Amino acid sequence: MKLYDYFRSSAAYRVRIALNLKGLVPERVFVHLAKGEQLAGDYLSVNPQGLVPALITDDGVVLSQSLAIIDWLDETHPVPPLMPAEPNERARVRSIALAIACDIHPLNNLRVLNYLSNTLGVTAEQRTGWYRYWIDLGFEALEKRLAGDPRTGPFCHGQSPTLADVCLVPQVANARRFHVDLSPYPAIVHIDAACAALPAFADAAPARQPDAE
Amino acid sequence: MKLYDYFRSSAAYRVRIALNLKGLVPERVFVHLAKGEQLAGDYLSVNPQGLVPALITDDGVVLSQSLAIIDWLDETHPVPPLMPAEPNERARVRSIALAIACDIHPLNNLRVLNYLSNTLGVTAEQRTGWYRYWIDLGFEALEKRLAGDPRTGPFCHGQSPTLADVCLVPQVANARRFHVDLSPYPAIVHIDAACAALPAFADAAPARQPDAE
Repeated sequence: MKLYDYFRSSAAYRVRIALNLKGLVPERVFVHLAKGEQLAGDYLSVNPQGLVPALITDDGVVLSQSLAIIDWLDETHPVPPLMPAEPNERARVRSIALAIACDIHPLNNLRVLNYLSNTLGVTAEQRTGWYRYWIDLGFEALEKRLAGDPRTGPFCHGQSPTLADVCLVPQVANARRFHVDLSPYPAIVHIDAACAALPAFADAAPARQPDAE
Repeated sequence: MKLYDYFRSSAAYRVRIALNLKGLVPERVFVHLAKGEQLAGDYLSVNPQGLVPALITDDGVVLSQSLAIIDWLDETHPVPPLMPAEPNERARVRSIALAIACDIHPLNNLRVLNYLSNTLGVTAEQRTGWYRYWIDLGFEALEKRLAGDPRTGPFCHGQSPTLADVCLVPQVANARRFHVDLSPYPAIVHIDAACAALPAFADAAPARQPDAE
């Protein structure tokens, strides 16, 4: 397997965690997003969307979109599972993951921040306000869901990490990077700490990647 | 089953299509997003995220996030399937669906447009430019993927509708509503037309809903 990766991409960070949980070590190619390498022809021929991550399977199939890659990993390498077996439980895990992957993260992506600054001419302060606003809005709802549901355990869903934790931890890292006050979200902080104690999560952190700056 | 719905929500539109494809007819509750009913206590007690859709199962379980609901529908009502069986094929369908559901749609959500206007003070013209920009960026990459892959058939993936089509059709409807020029995207337009010919898709369209204005 070959992973197209960038240390600071939260979507790539999710896939790194999932690969670690599965005990898989892919070859890695680093695509420097801040330098725009994702929009160069070489990479666009791999992933026309110009986003990382992409994963090339051992059969040469190109996979894109982090959640699709993680589902593929879970289907082809089922141990340990990243999803519960029962449909209602699966739906809860997916819903938590998507509340982050659809409703927080895409709004704070680099290309969106660039559009705000370069095309709409917003100030640096407004841009940071935007970033924090979507995290707070998403975390407020997520905190209620996690704190109010007996299915929440040390992890988002029960006693072992799932797709939901794989999405949560990179989002918490982004929140910290932008100095979002996490004190209103004790359930989220507690789960993040449980994950950080596992090498699969800790080793996937941006600062520990070979391309980290 | 009970669906919390709004005619103009693309996420609810996806779930309406999936329910129709499965031949399921839920009770429906309409939540008027433009009037802010999704942020009233009644609805927040159902879905703390304050977004539609939500689906209440026959067992009283609350499901949220359209893609999680659709996966649940596909797992609990497997005929006709909305996903292929083979992992590489599943990953392709998921990736197309997520390229829309994560990288186009959330940027053009009502709450985001409201933030642009009300908090950042962008003009109506800039707001429309933003809306079209993210659709064009997403559709350019998607058109390349669909047109350049032999697995594309009359539908995004093969000969029958999948989760990918369920996400594509509402996004095309949004593009038309905002007068995005679709002529650069013939593969997308072709698939949209194949879907529109099926009652499951046609009957789910915003204009055909009881709460349409």
